[in-house]
Amino acid sequence: MPTDSEIACFEAGIKFGTLYHQFTGTPVDHESAPGLERAMEEAIENQPHCTEASITVHDDRLDDAIDPEIGYTELQGPLMDAEITVEYEGVTVRTKMELEDGYPRMRVRNVEG
Amino acid sequence: MPTDSEIACFEAGIKFGTLYHQFTGTPVDHESAPGLERAMEEAIENQPHCTEASITVHDDRLDDAIDPEIGYTELQGPLMDAEITVEYEGVTVRTKMELEDGYPRMRVRNVEG
Amino acid sequence: MPTDSEIACFEAGIKFGTLYHQFTGTPVDHESAPGLERAMEEAIENQPHCTEASITVHDDRLDDAIDPEIGYTELQGPLMDAEITVEYEGVTVRTKMELEDGYPRMRVRNVEG
Amino acid sequence: MPTDSEIACFEAGIKFGTLYHQFTGTPVDHESAPGLERAMEEAIENQPHCTEASITVHDDRLDDAIDPEIGYTELQGPLMDAEITVEYEGVTVRTKMELEDGYPRMRVRNVEG
Repeated sequence: MPTDSEIACFEAGIKFGTLYHQFTGTPVDHESAPGLERAMEEAIENQPHCTEASITVHDDRLDDAIDPEIGYTELQGPLMDAEITVEYEGVTVRTKMELEDGYPRMRVRNVEG
Repeated sequence: MPTDSEIACFEAGIKFGTLYHQFTGTPVDHESAPGLERAMEEAIENQPHCTEASITVHDDRLDDAIDPEIGYTELQGPLMDAEITVEYEGVTVRTKMELEDGYPRMRVRNVEG
Repeated sequence: MPTDSEIACFEAGIKFGTLYHQFTGTPVDHESAPGLERAMEEAIENQPHCTEASITVHDDRLDDAIDPEIGYTELQGPLMDAEITVEYEGVTVRTKMELEDGYPRMRVRNVEG
Repeated sequence: MPTDSEIACFEAGIKFGTLYHQFTGTPVDHESAPGLERAMEEAIENQPHCTEASITVHDDRLDDAIDPEIGYTELQGPLMDAEITVEYEGVTVRTKMELEDGYPRMRVRNVEG
């Protein structure tokens, strides 16, 4: 039988897979990015056991990704960082996605309780 | 060679395919629906030649779709109506997605210019 | 610091979020379901630490979901069951998604090593 | 009222929006690409009025996109070309997505009938 900590980590992983594969590909520019960040956070926070999702689409990365002749780009993992917290049966799991050598790494930061 | 009207209709179709297949599956409840509507509209309006996207996730359909024990549902086509306007080389195409016999139908309403 | 078992469970969760939110919404019928099952399995097995993904779109549920006048449906979570195995630093995690009271539940079945 | 040709072009556009926004983001490598191509073609061919979808994920572009230390990449529009044919009320529309200056352009090639 898995422990509550293991189940909490599994639940946190589900949220990251959801964030990444539901929303990457979304047409985004500087104006629409803040609203998209909030919509993604609220979507993920709807999922079971998620107490907080904090997502940042970085302006400077967006700048680099947007071809001025096109005027927008598609949301991709490397454009954003994310922190997601899950609570399950008294266990709190804090997880993070951030760029590491150009690749968006998803990691468990700590497990408490 | 396709006419400008035909190209405008093709462009409008792309927007509907995008709306539907990018966003259905998103976890949604009554609180997050308005922000998601805006984020979807802004995403679609980023795409070429789209001058307006208006999307409504209907409260009553959301009510029916949300199991109270779960507290949220996944966005599906039948939960929403959408109107998308495309302008291409002086041609304006107005399109709509709405429920017809329980199935979300996408239609060209009119082509002008 | 998270344990190897906790990280393995996190990784398994990512795969389920990916499966669900990448592929639900895909137009599917009885003929295309087997190829889609394989494509989904191979996609998930590409992800880090995933040693096996086994996905079944159930014929009888597909029957119920397909309106004969439409001839196909969109892939939804309740139409399929899935088993995903992750190995991380000597820990093997077996996970499963299956219908429970009409809702596709994702669970950690066991953690070994 | 839109003409049959305009409706046919609208329908073709829907298929391209579907292809792009349903499947980009899918984890893919050289081994899984052929099965994914077929699964995408069959999915799109399930949609109304689509008589043929032909999709190629290019090996050389996949080579460039795959970091050997990662071993796979995510499917993106620039990795693939696609041809989609729609027939509606006797009108045949042939459409294509291909790279143009590094950007995947979707175009109506011809409208007949």
